[in-house]
Amino acid sequence: MNANQPSMTIRAIDVIRKKRDGQELTTAEIEYVVRAVTSGEIPDYQIAAWLMAVVLRGLTRAETSALTDSMLRSGEVLDLSELPTKKVDKHSTGGVGDKTSLVLAPLVAAARLIVPMISGRGLGHTGGTLDKLESIPGFNVNLSVPEFRRVLKTCGCAMIGQTSEIAPADRKLYALRDVTGTVESPYLICASIMSKKLAEGIDALVLDVKTGSGAFMKREEDAIRLAEIMVDTGKRMGKKVVALITDMDQPLGRAAGHSSEIIECIEVLNGRGPADLRDLSIELSAWMFYLGERTGSLEEGRKLAVSMIASGQAREKFRQGIRLQGGDEGVIDEPQRLPKARSSADIFSESDGYITGTNCEQFGTALAMLGGGREKKEDAIDPGVALEFHKRVGDPVRKGESLATIHYNADAKLAEAKIMVGASYFIAPEAPREKRPLIRRIIGA
Amino acid sequence: MNANQPSMTIRAIDVIRKKRDGQELTTAEIEYVVRAVTSGEIPDYQIAAWLMAVVLRGLTRAETSALTDSMLRSGEVLDLSELPTKKVDKHSTGGVGDKTSLVLAPLVAAARLIVPMISGRGLGHTGGTLDKLESIPGFNVNLSVPEFRRVLKTCGCAMIGQTSEIAPADRKLYALRDVTGTVESPYLICASIMSKKLAEGIDALVLDVKTGSGAFMKREEDAIRLAEIMVDTGKRMGKKVVALITDMDQPLGRAAGHSSEIIECIEVLNGRGPADLRDLSIELSAWMFYLGERTGSLEEGRKLAVSMIASGQAREKFRQGIRLQGGDEGVIDEPQRLPKARSSADIFSESDGYITGTNCEQFGTALAMLGGGREKKEDAIDPGVALEFHKRVGDPVRKGESLATIHYNADAKLAEAKIMVGASYFIAPEAPREKRPLIRRIIGA
Repeated sequence: MNANQPSMTIRAIDVIRKKRDGQELTTAEIEYVVRAVTSGEIPDYQIAAWLMAVVLRGLTRAETSALTDSMLRSGEVLDLSELPTKKVDKHSTGGVGDKTSLVLAPLVAAARLIVPMISGRGLGHTGGTLDKLESIPGFNVNLSVPEFRRVLKTCGCAMIGQTSEIAPADRKLYALRDVTGTVESPYLICASIMSKKLAEGIDALVLDVKTGSGAFMKREEDAIRLAEIMVDTGKRMGKKVVALITDMDQPLGRAAGHSSEIIECIEVLNGRGPADLRDLSIELSAWMFYLGERTGSLEEGRKLAVSMIASGQAREKFRQGIRLQGGDEGVIDEPQRLPKARSSADIFSESDGYITGTNCEQFGTALAMLGGGREKKEDAIDPGVALEFHKRVGDPVRKGESLATIHYNADAKLAEAKIMVGASYFIAPEAPREKRPLIRRIIGA
Repeated sequence: MNANQPSMTIRAIDVIRKKRDGQELTTAEIEYVVRAVTSGEIPDYQIAAWLMAVVLRGLTRAETSALTDSMLRSGEVLDLSELPTKKVDKHSTGGVGDKTSLVLAPLVAAARLIVPMISGRGLGHTGGTLDKLESIPGFNVNLSVPEFRRVLKTCGCAMIGQTSEIAPADRKLYALRDVTGTVESPYLICASIMSKKLAEGIDALVLDVKTGSGAFMKREEDAIRLAEIMVDTGKRMGKKVVALITDMDQPLGRAAGHSSEIIECIEVLNGRGPADLRDLSIELSAWMFYLGERTGSLEEGRKLAVSMIASGQAREKFRQGIRLQGGDEGVIDEPQRLPKARSSADIFSESDGYITGTNCEQFGTALAMLGGGREKKEDAIDPGVALEFHKRVGDPVRKGESLATIHYNADAKLAEAKIMVGASYFIAPEAPREKRPLIRRIIGA
């Protein structure tokens, strides 16, 4: 709070009107809103009106950064300065089969950077890191801040859920945005993500902004816009930030589903696994190394990432992390200890041709429908349910060949899920002319 | 409610999102919102978000008419079909010294049309018809619907406040608009005004849309836009509607203040009074006669209005109306029975020249500050407090001549009020080139 502008002179109604009329709010006005939201002294209907005005009028870069900063400071900001090296993290805007966090945290920590990763749960068609980790028997994502700090100190990485101490303003605002049609604003999305991530006390952040049919930002220009806002906001707040615009027009890797994705990550950490997941993990960790000043160049970062996998150090770091968070580290060597669905059913191609694209979001929705995701926040997740993808965009396919396998436990919605999965593959007589690159653009480098 | 679109399928969040994205809502969706607002089944924060989306995205004419119709039908619609002639009313968007209702109701009823006038109270810089009537000792504006009907049957006109039966959705929406910065939307203003006016069971409505420094719509184009929306909405709902865009760049008549305005109206009903008030009253009543099919032309309507004044019939109708609503009818002959302020102070011109304009809203604000208006809804009004205007735009003025007289009871804010009133006159060496016409435009004729 600026001492020259006491909060007594700022009124909610005036701040709402000012934003409604498209004017730029002062830092003091934005701080007032966030403080009043956190303390509960402003009624929900005024916040809702203000949020809708923000959605439709937008925020300037200065306003976005002030909002992010105020939300960040509405709660605790972790002070990890006692730990000896740079603290780095990655955030993804979410997609289907997007599991790189599980590879990156141990890989980057194995090379002695600190990765204090506070993650979210899945909702709708996207999966969540916390849910995936919980498919490992015993794994506890609900560490207190002191426990989180202790694991970080011992292991270099820790993966937990949002605690009540971190950015409480975001929790209140998000709950209201969810029911007032005010989620879809790049400014509000930026402030929500960046306030939580920067509360981790990190020095650098790599953003993986997904675009395509399986992403929230279906159009690449929207993904670029969000990325630019987030990078600018992070830099204004004194952090090193870069955003990779990456493809989510088809699932990442060969599986979507909680146990299955853990298995895929173990494969990558063992030097195998699907090429796209491996490539993206190496690229993202290279950026984390470079921004975290572990390497002098991106290319050195890539080499370091490859060596951490080849030497087994990344895999051993994952084992240590699982153990420290109470999980069954035996899954590293015996992935069959993870929950598995009882039944499976294949989806067969109805024609000869080439895969030209997918309706990727539908895969996530079908998975959720079968219990492998949440339709409502309260839903429980069946970690064994999965979709296994046999074909990628550009692949040739014969009539009657299996496109994908559904691993399921309950028959109830199987027929519907099969139709959805089948209908999500686009097959044409000719191969697509161009290959969609996995990494489409870098913002902020 | 359209039977083909059951309310079960409409969700508040979807209606908010649709309007946020600038799409046109169906009648069923709008009816759902209004019904949910009236019943209280939709939380205030969702209504607030929807209102802000409406303010910033606007409504189509079809949406505005559906909203007005739903709000109208959220409560009782008076059925006055037992009364033998057409029912007509006038609504003004409000200004300083705007008192024509008090002339029109008796004048038009004297010529045997029915005027079922439901009016509002003053807020901010504008006065309210109900408050002015209450300066008449004993006058009761809080009639029940059966009492209202009885007075109308006996007298042809009655003037009351909004009852709880009339358009309850508007009361709820207005209370929320007031605190969420969503008052200023021509679509919402239209729905609010028209739903209440059409609930009076009228056949025709004359709108007096004020523009200028003392009006809510300072810019003429905004006044025209609001007028067009209201006229269109009324016509879509099967009513005869016309709007006069009239000047509010200076006060109407020679006085602002409750008792003083009653006195001015009695003067006009006695064939005297200020020319502008008399002219506008005749013009508005002429339109009421014409739309109410009492006369075959507007010109005949003017003649009828003049004759109702000249014959004393309009004044006697006012006397009857006051008596029937419990007021002291003696004020007609002895206006000194009205409350009067104890003290007065003049505002003197500081230079020679011509009045070229006024900051008219400031007159209303100064009046309210002295107790002759409300700053908050709960404030009591001092009916004796008044501003008396001696000069009109275009008039020559000498240094030291009185521009206006303040009639006041409390010294507390007098000094401040004097400065405000003095500063609200613009004086220049040359007379303004053009005279601003009182009636600037007719919409919907």
